[in-house]
Amino acid sequence: MADNFYIALLHYPVYNKHGEVVTTAVTNMDVHDIARAALTYGVKRFYIVTPILVQRQLVAKIMQHWQQGYGSIYNPARREALQIADIKGSLDEVLDDVAGNEGKKPWLVATGANLAGKLITFRALRVRLREESDAHLLLFGTGWGMAQQVLERADFFLESIRGVMSYNHLSVRSAVSIALDRLWGEGTDGDVH
Amino acid sequence: MADNFYIALLHYPVYNKHGEVVTTAVTNMDVHDIARAALTYGVKRFYIVTPILVQRQLVAKIMQHWQQGYGSIYNPARREALQIADIKGSLDEVLDDVAGNEGKKPWLVATGANLAGKLITFRALRVRLREESDAHLLLFGTGWGMAQQVLERADFFLESIRGVMSYNHLSVRSAVSIALDRLWGEGTDGDVH
Repeated sequence: MADNFYIALLHYPVYNKHGEVVTTAVTNMDVHDIARAALTYGVKRFYIVTPILVQRQLVAKIMQHWQQGYGSIYNPARREALQIADIKGSLDEVLDDVAGNEGKKPWLVATGANLAGKLITFRALRVRLREESDAHLLLFGTGWGMAQQVLERADFFLESIRGVMSYNHLSVRSAVSIALDRLWGEGTDGDVH
Repeated sequence: MADNFYIALLHYPVYNKHGEVVTTAVTNMDVHDIARAALTYGVKRFYIVTPILVQRQLVAKIMQHWQQGYGSIYNPARREALQIADIKGSLDEVLDDVAGNEGKKPWLVATGANLAGKLITFRALRVRLREESDAHLLLFGTGWGMAQQVLERADFFLESIRGVMSYNHLSVRSAVSIALDRLWGEGTDGDVH
């Protein structure tokens, strides 16, 4: 169903709290939580993107532990989830990888708390993903959000997640989970979205 | 809107992977992520429940750091979110606290991946929360799920979250976020649920 739907978690280029472009550190919990949510919702591949080699090596080591080491026996659910995770050095490497699978580059959909212009609603994207045969890549930023140079490349900005309150500081783990549920979730009394 | 809606994260009594009733450790990331999601969706209070005194002291210390210490200046969004968090020693203490606020005990709604009987769908609960003036408490378990002794006290079991795949191992952080969004989330093109 979501067989040509991809997500990526960018650690560069993103803003820090002062609006400077930085590289954030990869968080162990992000890798596990997002891999589990991604597998639940049928995401084809979850890319963790960082230009820092030692960070890529760290993620590779975590993945190896849970996929082949003691962790694979202790917690098979983690092993299974990490099978759809992959590590890349840049967004361009991700786009090339998707193009290698799909024959062409995916549509780029950026997410964030305060994006304007190029907006697509959750409902419109949910319909589009079912009607379009092209692949789509949903981008999530870390830190204080994705830098302008990435946003400029996006075909669409996904509407921000709104709750009830004006407070809007979900963790990236929560934001990915909610976005995947809004795009792909189902309920026992039919389509929940 | 959700002004009499409460959630609790239980660390006892829950099962471990062998089906034994245990107390799980409180996780720093759970406290932050769930508090942020709870505030976003207008939850009145988020209870962290553990019978272990040193764990309650640890959570109190984390909360104090972010509410009054250096953390409150470094990251005001965390401070704000933690204002709705509270620590209790047992489910009964939580029920008493809600009863103290609301004049009577709340309806108990349990969540889990494989519950049967007493089921309520997300859509039905979403409607119920808007039509009933009574308070509701949504319970989330840690470890391998809430023990039978808690499930027996629940008035309802909330349908499990389904994605696209048979894989069903969301983190509790993801599960809380998705459940709150299904019950209280809104979209720019109207009700997303």
